[in-house]
Amino acid sequence: MKFKRSERLIDMTHYMLDRPHQLVPLTFFSERYGSAKSSISEDLTIIKETFEGRGVGTVQTVPGAAGGVKYIPKVNTEEAKAIVSELCEHMESSDRLLPGGYLFMTDLLGNPQLMKKVGKMLASAFAEKEIDVIMTVATKGIPIANAIASFLNVPVVIVRRDSRVTEGSTVSINYVSGSSKRIQSMVLSKRSLKEGSKVLVVDDFMKAGGTVNGMKNLLEEFSATLSGIGVLVESDTLDERLVDDYVSILKLSEVNERDKQISLTEGNYFQSGVTFLP
Amino acid sequence: MKFKRSERLIDMTHYMLDRPHQLVPLTFFSERYGSAKSSISEDLTIIKETFEGRGVGTVQTVPGAAGGVKYIPKVNTEEAKAIVSELCEHMESSDRLLPGGYLFMTDLLGNPQLMKKVGKMLASAFAEKEIDVIMTVATKGIPIANAIASFLNVPVVIVRRDSRVTEGSTVSINYVSGSSKRIQSMVLSKRSLKEGSKVLVVDDFMKAGGTVNGMKNLLEEFSATLSGIGVLVESDTLDERLVDDYVSILKLSEVNERDKQISLTEGNYFQSGVTFLP
Repeated sequence: MKFKRSERLIDMTHYMLDRPHQLVPLTFFSERYGSAKSSISEDLTIIKETFEGRGVGTVQTVPGAAGGVKYIPKVNTEEAKAIVSELCEHMESSDRLLPGGYLFMTDLLGNPQLMKKVGKMLASAFAEKEIDVIMTVATKGIPIANAIASFLNVPVVIVRRDSRVTEGSTVSINYVSGSSKRIQSMVLSKRSLKEGSKVLVVDDFMKAGGTVNGMKNLLEEFSATLSGIGVLVESDTLDERLVDDYVSILKLSEVNERDKQISLTEGNYFQSGVTFLP
Repeated sequence: MKFKRSERLIDMTHYMLDRPHQLVPLTFFSERYGSAKSSISEDLTIIKETFEGRGVGTVQTVPGAAGGVKYIPKVNTEEAKAIVSELCEHMESSDRLLPGGYLFMTDLLGNPQLMKKVGKMLASAFAEKEIDVIMTVATKGIPIANAIASFLNVPVVIVRRDSRVTEGSTVSINYVSGSSKRIQSMVLSKRSLKEGSKVLVVDDFMKAGGTVNGMKNLLEEFSATLSGIGVLVESDTLDERLVDDYVSILKLSEVNERDKQISLTEGNYFQSGVTFLP
């Protein structure tokens, strides 16, 4: 059965969007549609140009016998700036301010369209890094980790505060929370993380960085290595930070609990060496 | 600027896949591409046929001035059966058995490609229901809830076992766990759920149904109504169940802790009145 170009384009678009960062050999498509490789190549050129023009991402060609094509989700600068503005607008409403200078973000973390945007932005930032797995801490980091994972196409492991029967045997560490200086513990299921894994650590909110630092320590217990750190909001209200090499989308620059004033700006995203779509 | 049909098809495919269950007026596409509505209609026919033929879903046309098109993610029977087999195969390995007859599923819940399949299957089952929001309980229900949400395009609210400062004020209820008969509590942030919301309740594993039943009770506190219940695995090892109207993908039919034998079969998914793609 032969397929028309229009059907091929629709199906290839879906197939690639569904499998970001996965190498698809040209022969796979040419067999799927009973089409010549030259036609498939032409299709892929149109898809690549449309994806780039519309800010969807890019299509990378890997040459050679073991080659093929890969869809890499990427944002352009314009889209990234628009996402930052949209997030700032959502977050600056005064009723988000909670005791202790925390922000209520649960509704935003539960919004699938917003999380898609955040996930794509952070996946875009780490697209060139080698990443085997994304690590986050329960509960609020999970939607962000899942969103990034769907664009990087890698698994998520979830660190917990407490140990549960459904986790099997676990490894537990203690760490010092950066801002409150309290000793806390975190737990990871022993079989969640393979030795030597390259790990992207993500969280929703970073104050002094104690939690992120705890996850870094946990990596050592698993002989895993850190590939990067991504957070949605960093708080700029502290002098000392335990973590330095990270990417943040937003920065909480001012919190005035008495006047219920919150002020957010762009994070270090645009200064972190992210490559954007043209 | 005019667009060629090939570019339109690629961009429309991406646009619709990115916004399931959202009504898009034809005028939106005709303005986006500077094309006549008749051309857009032709494009949509090709997209609909390709989506249905490839098991991606369907494209619904809503007629009238306030009309447009909607992408509805749907599975066909063949795909759904294949997902069930794949999940069974993953789950039946004996080293998943944990003390108390629980199953280790953390790795599967962290696998984005598997979660996409589970999410699409359950979103497909509830595609015709009115759903404003998906509710689940931390931690293991979250990846499933996020996956379904990305196909139904509705927000997720997360019920917790404990109250945290970052949740703001909360509503707490006590419930009896069905299998262990212990009193437990669950907590939901007061501003997470609007009065009158129609809620899909989901979880990863259902034994007697105590947790799901607890979420049902919590809905009453918020004057919200239940639209459906979806679980990945139900356990068939109990006589009494607290919940009856639910959709399950898998059924844990036998657990032999001594011999470390686990046996899983199809859940009630195919008997639950789900409509499949032709």
